[in-house]
Amino acid sequence: MNIAVMPGDGVGKEVVPEGLKVLKAASEKFGFKYTTKDFPHGAEHYLATGITLPEADLKELGSFDAILFGAVGADPRGNARIPQGLIETDILLKMRFELDQYINLRPTRLMPGVPTPLANIGPGDIDMIIVRENTEGLYCQNGGFLYKNTPHEVANQIEVTTRHGVERAIRYAFEYAKQYKRKKVTLVAKTNVLRYAHNLWMRAFEEVKKEYTGIETDYHHVDACTMYMVTKPKIYDVVVTTNMFGDIITDLGAAIQGGMGMAASGNLNPTRKYASMFEPVHGSAPDIAGKGYANPIATFLSVAMMLDFLNQPAAAAAINKACKDVVADKANHTRDLGGTASTSQVGDAVKKLVAS
Amino acid sequence: MNIAVMPGDGVGKEVVPEGLKVLKAASEKFGFKYTTKDFPHGAEHYLATGITLPEADLKELGSFDAILFGAVGADPRGNARIPQGLIETDILLKMRFELDQYINLRPTRLMPGVPTPLANIGPGDIDMIIVRENTEGLYCQNGGFLYKNTPHEVANQIEVTTRHGVERAIRYAFEYAKQYKRKKVTLVAKTNVLRYAHNLWMRAFEEVKKEYTGIETDYHHVDACTMYMVTKPKIYDVVVTTNMFGDIITDLGAAIQGGMGMAASGNLNPTRKYASMFEPVHGSAPDIAGKGYANPIATFLSVAMMLDFLNQPAAAAAINKACKDVVADKANHTRDLGGTASTSQVGDAVKKLVAS
Ligand SMILES: CC(C)[C@H](C(=O)O)[C@@H](O)C(=O)O
Ligand SMILES: CC(C)[C@H](C(=O)O)[C@@H](O)C(=O)O
Repeated sequence: MNIAVMPGDGVGKEVVPEGLKVLKAASEKFGFKYTTKDFPHGAEHYLATGITLPEADLKELGSFDAILFGAVGADPRGNARIPQGLIETDILLKMRFELDQYINLRPTRLMPGVPTPLANIGPGDIDMIIVRENTEGLYCQNGGFLYKNTPHEVANQIEVTTRHGVERAIRYAFEYAKQYKRKKVTLVAKTNVLRYAHNLWMRAFEEVKKEYTGIETDYHHVDACTMYMVTKPKIYDVVVTTNMFGDIITDLGAAIQGGMGMAASGNLNPTRKYASMFEPVHGSAPDIAGKGYANPIATFLSVAMMLDFLNQPAAAAAINKACKDVVADKANHTRDLGGTASTSQVGDAVKKLVAS
Repeated sequence: MNIAVMPGDGVGKEVVPEGLKVLKAASEKFGFKYTTKDFPHGAEHYLATGITLPEADLKELGSFDAILFGAVGADPRGNARIPQGLIETDILLKMRFELDQYINLRPTRLMPGVPTPLANIGPGDIDMIIVRENTEGLYCQNGGFLYKNTPHEVANQIEVTTRHGVERAIRYAFEYAKQYKRKKVTLVAKTNVLRYAHNLWMRAFEEVKKEYTGIETDYHHVDACTMYMVTKPKIYDVVVTTNMFGDIITDLGAAIQGGMGMAASGNLNPTRKYASMFEPVHGSAPDIAGKGYANPIATFLSVAMMLDFLNQPAAAAAINKACKDVVADKANHTRDLGGTASTSQVGDAVKKLVAS
């Protein structure tokens, strides 16, 4: 398997090398071979070269079996030298959209030993698989300005929603439930207000669900969903939602599963026409970058998702289990979890278990 | 003062009468006079009459000094006899939009004695004032279908954002901060992805904030905001956000402040051209309606907001204080807070304190 590696910025550069360490241990243990090629793209690279992600690189990236991605992104309040959102749009979203990675799969699980901000909630209570539509909706960047910079300015942002796009996301959620023997698929949207886009979501959901008679279904408005996620997360099993709402509820999900350092994701092209991309949900975290204590667990779990996707389920399971065992011991907690372990210490611990 | 009263459906019919009881006690104690007129609109009324909210009634409603509203809304999965979202759109959103109630003010405070789902968080940690833009954005119902009910269907939902709309919301947030001596205003949006609509939000925010030099400012992406709300809510003071994101984060806010039964809101027309509307954030809650144990505190806090808006700050403060004192005692907790008190028991307790 050929893997493109793009650490990006900030802590991305710290967690991705640890991920490669664990990948190497898994390959030795489970006897699969792989090659890697590094890609330098990110905000720093842009500042140095003026380049975000050229077409040729994008095309090359698409031809790999998978992409292991760290994080990119500038300060949210903008940066004199980097236009707002440019890096995210021209690198991360570009890959998601142009490589047709139409599923953003974000498991949200609380592992034993990991502190959650929720009272009276334990590991058995949080085990959600969030299927986020990843190639349309509000993320498609359709829209425009009128009378820009005047008191009469209008800015339109269009949530473009297609039957094609929503149906394949919904179908993926049901197929996932079927394959992994999950009981329920919940659609999260806002049908009572977004009466065009989410009416389409609901109609597609109602139709597709008929094909999966053994699977329970439910619907929640997104506002209620955020409430239930903190009061009774156990009600969620597989959740399918829009790109924008998926962005929001997976961050909330990360928070309740112990923080961004625990949240893995796969940007999947299930047809395998182009490479799928695996990334920790966290960003480049400029505030803690370079200090060597970013939590690499989200990256390891993303590597496991990658191996599962590349038909190495035993290796994937071994990494998942190693992560679980490692975080069960407080001595392996990085600062985000209230501990003092370093990034490489956690990497070594996981690597050792995978190799054993 | 002339008050229009619209209890609506489900528990709306249980909490609004309690609200009127408390209002009456306040008027007797503080010596202000008021009249009320009932409006029957809601889902039940629609099922009986086929009418949502006719123009004439809307116009009449707008001429009151304030509207006290309960809740309306059908089952989210739709109802054969009620089209998806019809009641919400044609009654609640119609009032918000047509009466130009451009601010949805939603204080999110954890009161002593009220259980929160968050661990290690106490009353001093949650005191947010969420200013939700209330008359545009994704709620404007602009958009449409193409190739409806075919595999090629496209549904567009437009987040229409105007300088006019965002500037007045942002300005309101800063004016609020100034008047109530709050320290910080945080903009919550998604500037890195919604590069038209939220670019306008950011530009307006950057400009308006210059006029309020004593007030600290910050910016958070909405996804990060939902995470911080459960991990470190104390960082928020006044928050200003879009209609859609405000809907989401105020439900999450309700959850962390002890649930929907504690969350009040005011749909304000600060120019006073039309009536402002005061409503508990919760819905009609068909599952618990008719049982007499809905929590009326959100309605009382909404009545207090109404009185504050109608220049009765002493009466408002008395109701707020009574609510705080009443919920500090577990004996007054309704089921949502883990107790066994009935709606009217809580109403009596608050009324008694207001009158004393
Ligand atoms: C960096 C940003 C564009 C991205 C998103 O909004 O999708 C991130 O928040 C995520 O969830 O992966
Ligand atoms: C009932 C619904 C239309 C409404 C909204 O989405 O604004 C509600 O959720 C609220 O927050 O007041």
